[in-house]
Amino acid sequence: MLAAMEFTEVVRRRRMVRAYDPTRPVPPEVRDRILGNALHAPSAGFSQGWGFLVLEAAGDRELFWSVTTEADEAEEADSWLSGMSAAPLLIVCFSHKDAYLDRYAEPDKGWADRAESHWPVPYWDIDTGMAALLMLQTAVDEELGACFFGVPPEHIPGLRTVFGVPDGFAPIGVVSIGYRMPDQKSPSLRRGRRGADEVVHHGRW
Amino acid sequence: MLAAMEFTEVVRRRRMVRAYDPTRPVPPEVRDRILGNALHAPSAGFSQGWGFLVLEAAGDRELFWSVTTEADEAEEADSWLSGMSAAPLLIVCFSHKDAYLDRYAEPDKGWADRAESHWPVPYWDIDTGMAALLMLQTAVDEELGACFFGVPPEHIPGLRTVFGVPDGFAPIGVVSIGYRMPDQKSPSLRRGRRGADEVVHHGRW
Repeated sequence: MLAAMEFTEVVRRRRMVRAYDPTRPVPPEVRDRILGNALHAPSAGFSQGWGFLVLEAAGDRELFWSVTTEADEAEEADSWLSGMSAAPLLIVCFSHKDAYLDRYAEPDKGWADRAESHWPVPYWDIDTGMAALLMLQTAVDEELGACFFGVPPEHIPGLRTVFGVPDGFAPIGVVSIGYRMPDQKSPSLRRGRRGADEVVHHGRW
Repeated sequence: MLAAMEFTEVVRRRRMVRAYDPTRPVPPEVRDRILGNALHAPSAGFSQGWGFLVLEAAGDRELFWSVTTEADEAEEADSWLSGMSAAPLLIVCFSHKDAYLDRYAEPDKGWADRAESHWPVPYWDIDTGMAALLMLQTAVDEELGACFFGVPPEHIPGLRTVFGVPDGFAPIGVVSIGYRMPDQKSPSLRRGRRGADEVVHHGRW
Protein backbone atom coordinates (compact mmCIF):
# COMPACT_ATOMS: atom_id res chain seq x y z
CA MET A 1 0.00 0.00 0.00
CA LEU A 2 1.42 3.32 -1.07
CA ALA A 3 -0.13 6.29 0.64
CA ALA A 4 -0.20 9.30 -1.64
CA MET A 5 -2.33 12.02 -0.17
CA GLU A 6 -1.47 15.63 -0.79
CA PHE A 7 -0.06 17.51 2.16
CA THR A 8 -2.87 20.04 2.02
CA GLU A 9 -5.42 17.26 2.24
CA VAL A 10 -3.68 15.75 5.26
CA VAL A 11 -3.79 19.11 7.05
CA ARG A 12 -7.43 19.62 6.14
CA ARG A 13 -8.59 16.14 7.16
CA ARG A 14 -6.67 15.67 10.39
CA ARG A 15 -8.82 15.60 13.46
CA MET A 16 -8.80 13.57 16.66
CA VAL A 17 -10.60 10.25 16.21
CA ARG A 18 -11.82 8.62 19.41
CA ALA A 19 -13.41 5.34 18.22
CA TYR A 20 -11.73 2.49 16.41
CA ASP A 21 -12.61 -0.84 14.84
CA PRO A 22 -11.28 -3.39 17.36
CA THR A 23 -11.22 -6.16 14.75
CA ARG A 24 -8.70 -4.56 12.39
CA PRO A 25 -5.08 -4.27 13.52
CA VAL A 26 -2.78 -1.71 11.97
CA PRO A 27 -0.56 -3.55 9.45
CA PRO A 28 3.08 -3.74 10.58
CA GLU A 29 4.34 -1.82 7.54
CA VAL A 30 1.91 1.01 8.27
CA ARG A 31 2.95 1.06 11.92
CA ASP A 32 6.59 1.23 10.86
CA ARG A 33 5.88 4.05 8.42
CA ILE A 34 4.13 6.01 11.17
CA LEU A 35 7.14 5.53 13.45
CA GLY A 36 9.59 6.24 10.64
CA ASN A 37 7.98 9.60 9.88
CA ALA A 38 8.01 10.46 13.58
CA LEU A 39 11.77 9.99 13.60
CA HIS A 40 11.95 12.73 10.93
CA ALA A 41 10.71 15.36 13.37
CA PRO A 42 13.10 18.28 13.82
CA SER A 43 15.00 18.57 17.08
CA ALA A 44 17.26 21.21 18.63
CA GLY A 45 20.88 20.35 17.88
CA PHE A 46 19.58 17.14 16.30
CA SER A 47 19.34 15.90 19.90
CA GLN A 48 16.43 13.59 19.09
CA GLY A 49 15.74 13.23 22.79
CA TRP A 50 12.75 10.96 22.55
CA GLY A 51 11.60 7.39 23.00
CA PHE A 52 8.48 5.56 21.85
CA LEU A 53 6.71 2.68 23.54
CA VAL A 54 4.63 0.71 21.04
CA LEU A 55 1.74 -1.31 22.44
CA GLU A 56 -0.15 -3.72 20.20
CA ALA A 57 -0.73 -7.02 21.99
CA ALA A 58 -4.13 -7.01 23.69
CA GLY A 59 -2.55 -7.70 27.07
CA ASP A 60 -0.15 -4.79 26.75
CA ARG A 61 -2.90 -2.40 25.75
CA GLU A 62 -5.10 -3.58 28.60
CA LEU A 63 -2.20 -3.04 30.95
CA PHE A 64 -1.81 0.50 29.63
CA TRP A 65 -5.47 1.35 30.18
CA SER A 66 -5.55 -0.30 33.59
CA VAL A 67 -2.68 1.78 34.93
CA THR A 68 -3.70 5.09 33.30
CA THR A 69 -7.44 5.23 34.08
CA GLU A 70 -9.40 5.13 37.31
CA ALA A 71 -11.08 1.85 38.18
CA ASP A 72 -14.48 3.50 38.56
CA GLU A 73 -14.02 5.14 35.18
CA ALA A 74 -13.53 1.72 33.62
CA GLU A 75 -16.53 0.24 35.43
CA GLU A 76 -18.82 2.95 34.20
CA ALA A 77 -17.83 2.02 30.66
CA ASP A 78 -17.02 5.64 30.08
CA SER A 79 -17.78 6.36 26.45
CA TRP A 80 -14.42 8.01 25.82
CA LEU A 81 -12.62 4.99 27.22
CA SER A 82 -14.75 2.45 25.39
CA GLY A 83 -14.01 4.09 22.06
CA MET A 84 -10.35 4.73 22.77
CA SER A 85 -9.53 1.36 24.28
CA ALA A 86 -10.54 -0.29 21.01
CA ALA A 87 -7.49 1.23 19.33
CA PRO A 88 -5.26 -1.64 18.17
CA LEU A 89 -2.12 0.49 18.34
CA LEU A 90 -0.91 2.83 21.06
CA ILE A 91 2.37 4.72 20.84
CA VAL A 92 3.41 6.36 24.09
CA CYS A 93 5.73 9.29 23.33
CA PHE A 94 8.47 10.12 25.85
CA SER A 95 10.76 13.14 25.90
CA HIS A 96 14.32 12.74 27.16
CA LYS A 97 15.59 16.00 28.58
CA ASP A 98 19.04 14.63 29.39
CA ALA A 99 19.74 14.00 25.71
CA TYR A 100 19.34 17.76 25.13
CA LEU A 101 21.39 18.82 28.13
CA ASP A 102 24.13 16.39 27.08
CA ARG A 103 24.02 17.51 23.45
CA TYR A 104 24.31 21.19 24.38
CA ALA A 105 27.15 20.50 26.79
CA GLU A 106 29.28 19.55 23.77
CA PRO A 107 31.94 22.04 22.61
CA ASP A 108 30.02 23.32 19.54
CA LYS A 109 27.11 24.36 21.79
CA GLY A 110 29.06 25.20 24.90
CA TRP A 111 26.60 24.85 27.76
CA ALA A 112 28.91 22.60 29.74
CA ASP A 113 27.07 23.41 32.98
CA ARG A 114 23.98 21.60 31.64
CA ALA A 115 21.84 24.37 33.20
CA GLU A 116 18.19 24.35 32.21
CA SER A 117 18.14 28.13 32.50
CA HIS A 118 19.71 28.33 29.01
CA TRP A 119 16.49 26.97 27.55
CA PRO A 120 13.59 29.38 26.99
CA VAL A 121 11.14 26.47 26.69
CA PRO A 122 11.42 22.68 26.98
CA TYR A 123 12.42 21.77 23.44
CA TRP A 124 12.55 18.12 24.50
CA ASP A 125 8.77 18.24 24.98
CA ILE A 126 8.15 20.41 21.92
CA ASP A 127 10.24 18.28 19.56
CA THR A 128 8.63 15.08 20.82
CA GLY A 129 5.26 16.76 20.26
CA MET A 130 6.29 17.41 16.67
CA ALA A 131 7.06 13.70 16.33
CA ALA A 132 3.56 12.97 17.66
CA LEU A 133 2.03 15.34 15.08
CA LEU A 134 3.90 13.49 12.33
CA MET A 135 2.28 10.27 13.57
CA LEU A 136 -1.18 11.86 13.53
CA GLN A 137 -0.57 13.12 10.01
CA THR A 138 0.78 9.81 8.74
CA ALA A 139 -2.32 8.10 10.11
CA VAL A 140 -4.46 10.46 8.03
CA ASP A 141 -2.25 9.79 5.02
CA GLU A 142 -2.94 6.06 5.56
CA GLU A 143 -6.69 6.68 5.90
CA LEU A 144 -6.54 5.71 9.55
CA GLY A 145 -7.86 7.53 12.57
CA ALA A 146 -5.66 8.74 15.41
CA CYS A 147 -5.85 10.72 18.62
CA PHE A 148 -3.28 12.39 20.88
CA PHE A 149 -3.98 12.47 24.59
CA GLY A 150 -2.08 12.97 27.80
CA VAL A 151 -1.30 10.66 30.70
CA PRO A 152 -2.48 12.24 33.97
CA PRO A 153 0.46 12.98 36.29
CA GLU A 154 -0.83 10.65 39.00
CA HIS A 155 -0.71 7.68 36.63
CA ILE A 156 2.80 8.24 35.30
CA PRO A 157 4.60 6.31 38.07
CA GLY A 158 2.41 3.27 37.42
CA LEU A 159 2.97 3.49 33.68
CA ARG A 160 6.68 3.72 34.28
CA THR A 161 6.72 0.70 36.55
CA VAL A 162 4.69 -1.74 34.51
CA PHE A 163 6.48 -1.02 31.23
CA GLY A 164 9.97 -0.58 32.67
CA VAL A 165 10.42 3.01 31.50
CA PRO A 166 13.73 4.38 32.76
CA ASP A 167 13.97 7.56 34.80
CA GLY A 168 14.52 10.60 32.66
CA PHE A 169 11.94 9.67 30.02
CA ALA A 170 8.73 11.68 30.52
CA PRO A 171 5.49 10.73 28.73
CA ILE A 172 4.27 13.78 26.82
CA GLY A 173 1.24 11.95 25.44
CA VAL A 174 -0.06 8.93 23.65
CA VAL A 175 -1.03 8.47 20.01
CA SER A 176 -3.85 5.95 19.53
CA ILE A 177 -4.21 4.64 15.99
CA GLY A 178 -6.64 2.38 14.18
CA TYR A 179 -9.32 2.08 11.56
CA ARG A 180 -12.01 4.62 12.25
CA MET A 181 -15.43 3.95 13.61
CA PRO A 182 -18.13 6.61 13.72
CA ASP A 183 -17.46 8.88 16.67
CA GLN A 184 -18.67 12.13 18.05
CA LYS A 185 -16.54 15.13 17.36
CA SER A 186 -15.14 16.67 20.51
CA PRO A 187 -17.64 19.10 22.08
CA SER A 188 -14.63 21.41 22.46
CA LEU A 189 -14.76 22.05 18.72
CA ARG A 190 -17.99 23.95 19.23
CA ARG A 191 -15.88 26.68 20.78
CA GLY A 192 -14.78 27.49 17.26
CA ARG A 193 -11.39 27.94 15.71
CA ARG A 194 -9.51 31.08 16.62
CA GLY A 195 -9.08 33.01 13.41
CA ALA A 196 -6.06 34.89 12.11
CA ASP A 197 -7.69 38.16 13.17
CA GLU A 198 -7.49 36.98 16.76
CA VAL A 199 -4.05 35.36 16.96
CA VAL A 200 -1.93 36.82 14.15
CA HIS A 201 -0.24 40.18 14.69
CA HIS A 202 1.52 42.01 11.90
CA GLY A 203 4.57 44.12 12.69
CA ARG A 204 3.55 44.90 16.26
CA TRP A 205 1.36 42.99 18.68
CA MET B 1 -0.20 29.03 -7.27
CA LEU B 2 -1.59 25.78 -5.96
CA ALA B 3 0.83 23.76 -3.92
CA ALA B 4 0.24 20.05 -4.42
CA MET B 5 3.09 18.08 -2.96
CA GLU B 6 2.44 14.68 -1.47
CA PHE B 7 2.60 14.47 2.29
CA THR B 8 5.34 11.86 2.14
CA GLU B 9 7.44 14.16 -0.01
CA VAL B 10 6.99 17.03 2.44
CA VAL B 11 8.19 14.83 5.31
CA ARG B 12 11.14 13.59 3.28
CA ARG B 13 12.25 17.03 2.06
CA ARG B 14 11.81 19.07 5.20
CA ARG B 15 15.04 20.28 6.72
CA MET B 16 16.15 23.50 8.32
CA VAL B 17 17.24 26.07 5.73
CA ARG B 18 19.53 28.83 7.02
CA ALA B 19 20.11 31.04 3.94
CA TYR B 20 17.53 32.95 1.95
CA ASP B 21 17.31 35.11 -1.15
CA PRO B 22 16.92 38.63 0.27
CA THR B 23 15.47 39.95 -3.00
CA ARG B 24 12.38 37.73 -3.07
CA PRO B 25 9.62 38.36 -0.54
CA VAL B 26 7.17 35.62 0.35
CA PRO B 27 3.92 36.36 -1.52
CA PRO B 28 1.09 37.42 0.80
CA GLU B 29 -1.13 34.51 -0.21
CA VAL B 30 1.65 32.05 0.60
CA ARG B 31 2.26 33.74 3.95
CA ASP B 32 -1.45 33.51 4.71
CA ARG B 33 -1.55 29.84 3.74
CA ILE B 34 1.40 29.13 6.06
CA LEU B 35 -0.40 30.89 8.90
CA GLY B 36 -3.72 29.27 8.03
CA ASN B 37 -2.24 25.78 8.25
CA ALA B 38 -0.60 26.65 11.58
CA LEU B 39 -4.04 27.48 12.97
CA HIS B 40 -5.05 23.88 12.16
CA ALA B 41 -2.63 22.49 14.73
CA PRO B 42 -4.28 20.36 17.38
CA SER B 43 -4.59 21.74 20.90
CA ALA B 44 -5.69 20.35 24.25
CA GLY B 45 -9.37 21.13 24.80
CA PHE B 46 -9.20 23.15 21.56
CA SER B 47 -7.60 25.84 23.76
CA GLN B 48 -5.55 27.23 20.87
CA GLY B 49 -3.43 29.13 23.34
CA TRP B 50 -1.07 30.72 20.87
CA GLY B 51 -0.21 33.98 19.16
CA PHE B 52 1.93 34.74 16.12
CA LEU B 53 3.93 37.87 15.43
CA VAL B 54 4.55 38.29 11.70
CA LEU B 55 7.55 40.42 10.70
CA GLU B 56 8.03 41.34 7.05
CA ALA B 57 8.97 45.03 6.76
CA ALA B 58 12.76 45.41 6.67
CA GLY B 59 12.68 47.69 9.69
CA ASP B 60 10.68 45.23 11.76
CA ARG B 61 12.99 42.37 10.86
CA GLU B 62 16.07 44.47 11.68
CA LEU B 63 14.49 45.33 15.00
CA PHE B 64 13.95 41.65 15.69
CA TRP B 65 17.57 40.74 14.97
CA SER B 66 18.91 43.73 16.88
CA VAL B 67 17.09 42.75 20.08
CA THR B 68 17.68 39.00 19.83
CA THR B 69 21.38 38.83 18.94
CA GLU B 70 24.50 40.15 20.64
CA ALA B 71 26.03 43.30 19.15
CA ASP B 72 29.45 41.64 18.76
CA GLU B 73 27.80 38.72 17.03
CA ALA B 74 26.33 41.11 14.47
CA GLU B 75 29.62 42.96 13.98
CA GLU B 76 31.44 39.74 13.26
CA ALA B 77 28.96 39.08 10.45
CA ASP B 78 28.38 35.68 11.95
CA SER B 79 27.62 33.36 9.06
CA TRP B 80 24.49 31.97 10.72
CA LEU B 81 23.14 35.45 11.24
CA SER B 82 24.02 36.69 7.76
CA GLY B 83 22.14 33.79 6.17
CA MET B 84 19.21 33.92 8.55
CA SER B 85 18.74 37.68 8.59
CA ALA B 86 18.11 37.59 4.84
CA ALA B 87 14.82 35.80 5.48
CA PRO B 88 12.01 38.06 4.23
CA LEU B 89 9.47 36.58 6.64
CA LEU B 90 9.77 35.83 10.34
CA ILE B 91 6.93 34.41 12.38
CA VAL B 92 7.51 34.50 16.13
CA CYS B 93 5.42 31.81 17.80
CA PHE B 94 4.10 32.48 21.31
CA SER B 95 2.38 30.06 23.67
CA HIS B 96 -0.35 31.33 25.96
CA LYS B 97 -0.57 29.21 29.08
CA ASP B 98 -3.47 31.16 30.57
CA ALA B 99 -5.71 30.16 27.67
CA TYR B 100 -5.21 26.52 28.72
CA LEU B 101 -5.68 27.13 32.43
CA ASP B 102 -8.85 29.10 31.66
CA ARG B 103 -10.17 26.49 29.25
CA TYR B 104 -9.64 23.65 31.74
CA ALA B 105 -11.26 25.65 34.54
CA GLU B 106 -14.55 25.37 32.63
CA PRO B 107 -17.18 22.92 33.94
CA ASP B 108 -16.61 20.22 31.28
CA LYS B 109 -12.92 19.97 32.29
CA GLY B 110 -13.30 20.84 35.94
CA TRP B 111 -9.90 22.14 37.01
CA ALA B 112 -11.38 25.28 38.54
CA ASP B 113 -8.28 25.79 40.69
CA ARG B 114 -6.25 26.50 37.52
CA ALA B 115 -3.38 24.51 39.07
CA GLU B 116 -0.50 23.69 36.76
CA SER B 117 0.04 20.45 38.65
CA HIS B 118 -2.81 18.89 36.66
CA TRP B 119 -0.67 19.10 33.54
CA PRO B 120 1.96 16.41 32.94
CA VAL B 121 3.74 18.59 30.38
CA PRO B 122 3.21 22.13 29.04
CA TYR B 123 0.73 21.46 26.24
CA TRP B 124 0.68 25.19 25.51
CA ASP B 125 4.31 24.89 24.36
CA ILE B 126 3.80 21.53 22.66
CA ASP B 127 0.70 22.60 20.73
CA THR B 128 2.35 25.84 19.61
CA GLY B 129 5.33 23.76 18.50
CA MET B 130 2.97 21.67 16.39
CA ALA B 131 1.74 24.91 14.80
CA ALA B 132 5.38 25.77 14.04
CA LEU B 133 5.92 22.36 12.41
CA LEU B 134 2.88 22.98 10.21
CA MET B 135 4.54 26.22 9.07
CA LEU B 136 7.80 24.43 8.29
CA GLN B 137 5.91 21.80 6.33
CA THR B 138 3.80 24.32 4.42
CA ALA B 139 6.99 26.13 3.43
CA VAL B 140 8.31 22.88 1.93
CA ASP B 141 4.97 22.36 0.18
CA GLU B 142 5.42 25.84 -1.33
CA GLU B 143 9.02 25.05 -2.37
CA LEU B 144 10.31 27.57 0.15
CA GLY B 145 12.96 27.15 2.80
CA ALA B 146 12.31 27.57 6.50
CA CYS B 147 14.03 27.22 9.85
CA PHE B 148 12.82 27.00 13.45
CA PHE B 149 15.03 28.53 16.13
CA GLY B 150 14.73 29.72 19.69
CA VAL B 151 14.99 33.15 21.28
CA PRO B 152 17.60 33.07 24.08
CA PRO B 153 15.99 33.75 27.48
CA GLU B 154 18.06 36.89 28.04
CA HIS B 155 16.63 38.50 24.88
CA ILE B 156 12.98 37.77 25.57
CA PRO B 157 12.32 40.91 27.65
CA GLY B 158 13.71 43.08 24.84
CA LEU B 159 11.64 41.28 22.23
CA ARG B 160 8.56 41.74 24.37
CA THR B 161 9.19 45.44 24.84
CA VAL B 162 9.90 46.48 21.27
CA PHE B 163 7.00 44.58 19.76
CA GLY B 164 4.51 45.19 22.56
CA VAL B 165 3.97 41.53 23.42
CA PRO B 166 1.66 41.21 26.43
CA ASP B 167 2.63 39.33 29.56
CA GLY B 168 1.57 35.72 29.44
CA PHE B 169 2.67 35.10 25.87
CA ALA B 170 5.99 33.20 25.81
CA PRO B 171 8.05 32.91 22.60
CA ILE B 172 8.66 29.21 21.95
CA GLY B 173 10.63 29.91 18.77
CA VAL B 174 10.73 31.67 15.45
CA VAL B 175 10.02 30.34 11.96
CA SER B 176 12.10 32.07 9.28
CA ILE B 177 10.82 31.63 5.75
CA GLY B 178 12.02 32.58 2.28
CA TYR B 179 13.27 31.39 -1.04
CA ARG B 180 16.24 29.15 -0.49
CA MET B 181 19.84 30.01 -1.17
CA PRO B 182 22.60 27.40 -1.03
CA ASP B 183 23.48 26.78 2.60
CA GLN B 184 25.48 24.37 4.62
CA LYS B 185 23.59 21.62 6.31
CA SER B 186 23.82 21.80 10.07
CA PRO B 187 26.97 20.08 11.35
CA SER B 188 24.67 18.51 13.95
CA LEU B 189 23.28 16.25 11.22
CA ARG B 190 26.62 14.46 11.12
CA ARG B 191 25.62 12.97 14.44
CA GLY B 192 23.24 10.79 12.48
CA ARG B 193 19.60 10.05 12.89
CA ARG B 194 18.61 7.87 15.81
CA GLY B 195 17.08 4.75 14.31
CA ALA B 196 14.02 2.82 15.38
CA ASP B 197 16.28 0.21 16.99
CA GLU B 198 17.47 2.89 19.40
CA VAL B 199 14.28 4.76 20.28
CA VAL B 200 11.35 2.44 19.59
CA HIS B 201 10.42 -0.12 22.22
CA HIS B 202 7.83 -2.82 21.58
CA GLY B 203 5.63 -4.03 24.42
CA ARG B 204 8.15 -3.23 27.15
CA TRP B 205 10.94 -0.66 27.30
